[in-house]
Amino acid sequence: MLKRYLPVLTWLPHYNRRQLGADLLAGIIVTVMVIPQSLAYALLAGLPAVVGLYASLLPAVLYALLGTSRTLAVGPVAIIALMTGAALSNVATPGSAAYLQAALVLSLLSGAMLVAMGLLRLGFFANFLSHPVIAGFLSSSAVLIAIGQFAHMAGISAGGYNALELLSGIIDGLPHLHWPTLAIGLGTLLFLVTSRRQARPLLTRLGLAPATAGLVARSGPVLAVVATTLLSWQLGLAERGVAVVGAVPGGLPPLTLPGFDLTLWRALLIPALLISVVGFVESISMAQMLAAKRRQRISPNQELVGLGSANLAAAFTAGMPVTGGLSRTVINDESGAQTPFAGLFAALGIGLVTLLLTPLLHHLPIATLAATITVAILTLVDIPMIRQTWRYSRSDFSAMAATILLTLAEGVEAGIITGVALSIGLFLYRTSRPHSAVVGRLPDSEHFRSIQRHETETLSHVSFLRIDESLYFANARYLEDTVLQIVAHHPGLEHVVLICSAVNLIDASALESLEAINERLNEAGVTLHLAEVKGPVMDRLKRSDFLDGLRGRVFLSPFAAWEAFKPGAVENQRA
Amino acid sequence: MLKRYLPVLTWLPHYNRRQLGADLLAGIIVTVMVIPQSLAYALLAGLPAVVGLYASLLPAVLYALLGTSRTLAVGPVAIIALMTGAALSNVATPGSAAYLQAALVLSLLSGAMLVAMGLLRLGFFANFLSHPVIAGFLSSSAVLIAIGQFAHMAGISAGGYNALELLSGIIDGLPHLHWPTLAIGLGTLLFLVTSRRQARPLLTRLGLAPATAGLVARSGPVLAVVATTLLSWQLGLAERGVAVVGAVPGGLPPLTLPGFDLTLWRALLIPALLISVVGFVESISMAQMLAAKRRQRISPNQELVGLGSANLAAAFTAGMPVTGGLSRTVINDESGAQTPFAGLFAALGIGLVTLLLTPLLHHLPIATLAATITVAILTLVDIPMIRQTWRYSRSDFSAMAATILLTLAEGVEAGIITGVALSIGLFLYRTSRPHSAVVGRLPDSEHFRSIQRHETETLSHVSFLRIDESLYFANARYLEDTVLQIVAHHPGLEHVVLICSAVNLIDASALESLEAINERLNEAGVTLHLAEVKGPVMDRLKRSDFLDGLRGRVFLSPFAAWEAFKPGAVENQRA
Repeated sequence: MLKRYLPVLTWLPHYNRRQLGADLLAGIIVTVMVIPQSLAYALLAGLPAVVGLYASLLPAVLYALLGTSRTLAVGPVAIIALMTGAALSNVATPGSAAYLQAALVLSLLSGAMLVAMGLLRLGFFANFLSHPVIAGFLSSSAVLIAIGQFAHMAGISAGGYNALELLSGIIDGLPHLHWPTLAIGLGTLLFLVTSRRQARPLLTRLGLAPATAGLVARSGPVLAVVATTLLSWQLGLAERGVAVVGAVPGGLPPLTLPGFDLTLWRALLIPALLISVVGFVESISMAQMLAAKRRQRISPNQELVGLGSANLAAAFTAGMPVTGGLSRTVINDESGAQTPFAGLFAALGIGLVTLLLTPLLHHLPIATLAATITVAILTLVDIPMIRQTWRYSRSDFSAMAATILLTLAEGVEAGIITGVALSIGLFLYRTSRPHSAVVGRLPDSEHFRSIQRHETETLSHVSFLRIDESLYFANARYLEDTVLQIVAHHPGLEHVVLICSAVNLIDASALESLEAINERLNEAGVTLHLAEVKGPVMDRLKRSDFLDGLRGRVFLSPFAAWEAFKPGAVENQRA
Repeated sequence: MLKRYLPVLTWLPHYNRRQLGADLLAGIIVTVMVIPQSLAYALLAGLPAVVGLYASLLPAVLYALLGTSRTLAVGPVAIIALMTGAALSNVATPGSAAYLQAALVLSLLSGAMLVAMGLLRLGFFANFLSHPVIAGFLSSSAVLIAIGQFAHMAGISAGGYNALELLSGIIDGLPHLHWPTLAIGLGTLLFLVTSRRQARPLLTRLGLAPATAGLVARSGPVLAVVATTLLSWQLGLAERGVAVVGAVPGGLPPLTLPGFDLTLWRALLIPALLISVVGFVESISMAQMLAAKRRQRISPNQELVGLGSANLAAAFTAGMPVTGGLSRTVINDESGAQTPFAGLFAALGIGLVTLLLTPLLHHLPIATLAATITVAILTLVDIPMIRQTWRYSRSDFSAMAATILLTLAEGVEAGIITGVALSIGLFLYRTSRPHSAVVGRLPDSEHFRSIQRHETETLSHVSFLRIDESLYFANARYLEDTVLQIVAHHPGLEHVVLICSAVNLIDASALESLEAINERLNEAGVTLHLAEVKGPVMDRLKRSDFLDGLRGRVFLSPFAAWEAFKPGAVENQRA
């Protein structure tokens, strides 16, 4: 019981020295690798760079204690940073104290929602984001981020949270393009892209073990940060107009208290919900993938508690909304992390850097960070998935396309809300016009298939109708129309057999429709029968008056009905 | 083609004298019967009584020309009047010119929405109101109206659009209770209830034909109006503090133009949508019932156009939102109306009254109208439906109960929105945890049923899993869990057969999950097969790469799989 709420208890008793060594190494590697992106994502959200470091400390510790994934790394991530920036810029001016305060409130609300959803076991809620909508949202958000980062790489100040705002900002800024900044930005970009593609095979050929080669290849951003910082310091680039990170306050994060202001809380309620759900989906997909690889299990509801607590921690230590991040988790995993201790060690490492080494970050050019983000984020653009969805289902594709278009044109919130609403709406629309088929018997079998797709035997006075959907309020009226139309088109009809093999539910609205169908068929001299009604559905029908009013029978299968009605059958003569 | 958009063309060419006579009689009866309720519903919406007459003129004419029901009578109705009052009181003060103006805008928006939905063929939209939610909404709105009318009957001024406001107003007003008003109100109420119950059997016993007896019994409200108006005039009750209708301006309705004010339009957008949908559902249910009785057909999309045009007409002739009304339609039908000409004659009759006879309405006591509404409205309280829903489905009942509670506690808008959201949410929740069953073969048959409910034969190295739901984004992850759990619990398993007889759709998210399941089963040395895949689902799977990656086969039926895998089968040895 206690283990369920404190997952740390499941692995801590068996912890050994071999694991400690692996975790320690992974912690050190993650510390070094994760600092540049933590700074960058804070800037992406319109917050001071140091907030990214703060948000990688206590939140990571809390997730390590309460989360169920062994190797998920929690901290600021790109998409959530973008959504945070979009939400905060609606309620405060970037750079102001109100903006910082709003970031705390957003973390608090989002943390509280996640914890509440976990305790109420509402993990299934995340399922309402369909895969195509997620893929579309991530792809288009990545494009938005890349456009914004291009402005930083070119030394142009272009604000905004949709493609139109960003592009018009860039076009306006082109005359003031800053060439030294662009040189650093594009140089870094080129180096990162090349090292990402070439370094790994090269290092393997030079004799490094594949795992080590992969890790060294991933250290490109660290090398770029070190090199451009040294360059910027030596050449005094800051004085020549290249934007740098500047003074980063040293010391551990201050304790903060998100203030209560009803107007602000209301304004941030929906953004916090969206950030919670998107963050949870991103995090749990990755956690599940890793768990499957290592044959471990994660619990979605406990994950909600873990991520929620991490966000609550961010709210009280000058942080920003966090979740399980793709790139930091991959680094942690590839560095050989065995348990959440790796995350604790990384938090310790980042804590030491924050305490002692922030002056080293002063000369780091913003353009370097922008190039780092761009390379990392563009892996989220999933063209094959878009192409595959187009081929497989136009309906899924339309939801995906709407998500992409609205994310680009209006911003992240409009995009994700449209995607979810369209997914649900299209599903409801589809189930509201259920597929149904008049079926016949496959010769010499007990099997019934559509008379339009197969060679079948039929009986002229009996119609077998298979309904391929649960019956509920949205399709109840459609069912009435379908049955009455069949009766209208077959003058000699005496029996209608509704085959319910695909009916998993008959709700109260559909029950009323069935009663109406039974009544109208009786008036027309036709008897209604049911066949292959599932156990749970039958149990429920027995609780209503429907079966008392039904003149026909409930057959075990369509074949049993066939036997009863076929020419020469005793039942048939009686009927 | 033209007939589809002008339904009047389908019956006008065959119109004969017998029908003309019947329609004329019905028109006269409806004129007399409908005037009291038209006045009353305008007052219920916080509008001057004469607006109710105006809204029964041109709107009724337009519906007669464009609607598809032969006997539906369109005008102000109780629930829509209540919703109108609730919406308008949020944006203007009752009695002010702005309030009248807002009523026109509300009619315009609602009319435009209905016409647009009709032209876009969105009639299915109304299906998303489940029957229990509608029943709960009508019942609780009726209670709200009855409470409000009690205040009028007692001469207390209690405003408000939820039960708390109304009841506290009544309690505050009790000390100022006006006894003469209460005497008229309760006297009328008693008379109406008695005449409703007793008059019909009494008149039949006195020798009247049943139809005539029914009609005379329904004329109770007209008698009450005439009697109390005479009484009020003779005794000068208005001077003694009894509220009367007062001066009603004579003459035809003025032409009006709903002004454009963006703030007002925005504020009325959601209320207009709710009024449109609720009004459409109320109207179409009744139209369908009547059409079935007379073996006629109605077209939902053309009904939208007809009702929408009626509301547009209301917006330009000083009216209020209208729809097909229960009591006026029943009167029309029982008076023997044959075609929409009956509605035209009634409009003509009401027009004459409006033109010439409004001074007669001066002394009519409000308490009489309140008693009339109360008796009419309480027939909407559907206790048997509430009881039946409770017995049949707790989930449907919870949506209904929430609708009732919120309508009473918060008002009509909160109630209906909650009801719809809960209906959809509960449906999605149910389908997100699909029922599935491990099935076995019924001995000596080709039939497979749940091994928990039936005596079945099974094969130790094959698991037959029937999924009882379409596979889509909300249940894709659940499916993965279910299959992997079965594999984890059966060490000797070699084959898993997914029986898709109830799977009507596999969306892009579920396709990804199936691919993941196939991959994981392969890793575990288990082969995945499908059986009984429906035609349309199979067509779609062929458009993806799934079938190429599937190691197992797609069987026509579970029995075909059984034959392939049973001990001694050639396939089994190969597998």
